[in-house]
Amino acid sequence: MKSDLVKLVDDATAGGPRSLRAAARLMSVITDQPQRLGELLAGSRHWTEPRLVLGVTGAPGSGKSTLVDHLAAEYRHRYPDGRLGIVAVDPSSPYTGGALLGDRVRMMRHATDPHVFIRSLASRGQLGGLALGAKGVVRVMGLIGCDVVIVETVGVGQCEVEIAQNADVTMVVLAPGQGDSIQMLKAGLIEAGDVFVVNKADRPDAVRLQQQLLSALRLRQPAPVGDPSHNAWPTQIEQQVFLCSAINHKNIAEVVDYLEGLEIGSELGWQCHRRELVVTEVRQALAHEITQRIERLLGHSHQVERRFAGLLNGSASVADLADELLDELAQEARLRKPATEPYKPERGGVAAAAV
Amino acid sequence: MKSDLVKLVDDATAGGPRSLRAAARLMSVITDQPQRLGELLAGSRHWTEPRLVLGVTGAPGSGKSTLVDHLAAEYRHRYPDGRLGIVAVDPSSPYTGGALLGDRVRMMRHATDPHVFIRSLASRGQLGGLALGAKGVVRVMGLIGCDVVIVETVGVGQCEVEIAQNADVTMVVLAPGQGDSIQMLKAGLIEAGDVFVVNKADRPDAVRLQQQLLSALRLRQPAPVGDPSHNAWPTQIEQQVFLCSAINHKNIAEVVDYLEGLEIGSELGWQCHRRELVVTEVRQALAHEITQRIERLLGHSHQVERRFAGLLNGSASVADLADELLDELAQEARLRKPATEPYKPERGGVAAAAV
Repeated sequence: MKSDLVKLVDDATAGGPRSLRAAARLMSVITDQPQRLGELLAGSRHWTEPRLVLGVTGAPGSGKSTLVDHLAAEYRHRYPDGRLGIVAVDPSSPYTGGALLGDRVRMMRHATDPHVFIRSLASRGQLGGLALGAKGVVRVMGLIGCDVVIVETVGVGQCEVEIAQNADVTMVVLAPGQGDSIQMLKAGLIEAGDVFVVNKADRPDAVRLQQQLLSALRLRQPAPVGDPSHNAWPTQIEQQVFLCSAINHKNIAEVVDYLEGLEIGSELGWQCHRRELVVTEVRQALAHEITQRIERLLGHSHQVERRFAGLLNGSASVADLADELLDELAQEARLRKPATEPYKPERGGVAAAAV
Repeated sequence: MKSDLVKLVDDATAGGPRSLRAAARLMSVITDQPQRLGELLAGSRHWTEPRLVLGVTGAPGSGKSTLVDHLAAEYRHRYPDGRLGIVAVDPSSPYTGGALLGDRVRMMRHATDPHVFIRSLASRGQLGGLALGAKGVVRVMGLIGCDVVIVETVGVGQCEVEIAQNADVTMVVLAPGQGDSIQMLKAGLIEAGDVFVVNKADRPDAVRLQQQLLSALRLRQPAPVGDPSHNAWPTQIEQQVFLCSAINHKNIAEVVDYLEGLEIGSELGWQCHRRELVVTEVRQALAHEITQRIERLLGHSHQVERRFAGLLNGSASVADLADELLDELAQEARLRKPATEPYKPERGGVAAAAV
């Protein structure tokens, strides 16, 4: 029995206008239930992937959106028949529950281009889910033949930077007048980026910012081996700094030349990096699934308070509470099993095919 | 039997120089093992809390650190005998594993003040842990008699904003030249703040930014009731905008007047808000504990790949993997129980006292 997701994948890869509707539906499913990314990964080896996934991050006001807009225009100019995807990750509006129109307004000139696919993602308070959702959308864009996918995040918080790093290449956008080099260091941008763009190059202090950045890159400490936060992938590319003026389309072609020169599809190092990203995706999907089960089990505030009473009066520890919860979750899983699972995988993960 | 943490708490509240050493040790324990915050919460009803916890957030370069520095000076001037805590949350350096000295350099004038306690927290890649660690440090600062604690975050990512919102009052710092009002909206700052400071008021476009901010606040949609991301606490204060120049100490006294007028310690609404924050803390400590157990169980990359093989070849789903993991974790907890647990809490949380 095929799942609804696999059917949508079949439709999305079949071509024609129906395929785009199926892709849009797939994106909605994956952003609403990010843990289902696992199902998308399941068949992913046989599906097309984007040639390049570019993550773009930088502080609000650095001109990221404008840069992405012009990078997209340059790619469209070079590959008139290619498809391009843009994922705008906007963790902003946890309260209103929807992405803002700002980016879409700016991207108006691409909005009517049938070769460009734009998807905005807002968070609704769950950043883990947002990162997974973004990965799912990138995967679906690959399915429908997008060669290049640009993932742009708003904000320079650690989560946003991590989303931008779930890519082949991470681009950090900076602009003069946004704070000195200590500020860049503080925001963790030096370590996060493979490529740096100093935007708004027509401003007087742009060159000074470029110099500060180059010094900071030279001073950069190598990541300690064995540190769990350390991305084990041996960096294939040296960090690069470009001076651009996105709004005047200045030096945009040079940035694209550079990206095109990386040969991500053919080199072994890049392929290993992508494989590691997939394992990370599964880990995150798993964590998201378990977190959601915990939240369901904990339920509403008044129930939680009763459950936490032991802890707050000092008679139980967090470890005790965790033991209790895990026991309940395991029982729940055992009870649920025969009813909803079409097949029963053996311990070890390799199981008989679905009935 | 008292735990090491309870002993440290006793020492920290005893007074004298030994108490400060114990407090510093407590802060280290809680930032290294954030899930132990639960143990600190256990006795928290009998311990002193800060009169005001102020969260401060804003984009890098907005002059947050300078503002915090001047707010601290103003508080020290008004309450020469009071103690003040500053927690600088710096999720920046996941690779180098330590906070930068930038803030400490700026805070030099407070560094030699025996009434001011400064603690920097860096993330090492785990933001959940960072948020919990910051709360633990605030609690310890309360223990040693800090009346006011300022929690400053670097960056305006959603995680950083959430850390700043784990406070009585959340202050958002903005500066002219950092992007227009759409950028503020995109960064989710309008909904996040109780108090807004437009800093660098001597710059020509500061007043325009203040106007944009006031319009944005007027347009702000109320949070939909029932939305899980909605903080259910009925806001006690109307959102306020101040025009300051931190570096010239201009209007700093007005901001402190305003904060002092809120009477957080005595009003019921604030107390309910604080109680909700405690429940959130326990939830987060629990999630952190379980996440860590999962990570330990999953172990290293090559083991993970084997475990994930079923998923990647399409024979198992994320839900199957989650069932499997939860079962193993529950078994592990049952096996561990008699050896390491000094007491056995009954289901429901209310248990006999520890032996």
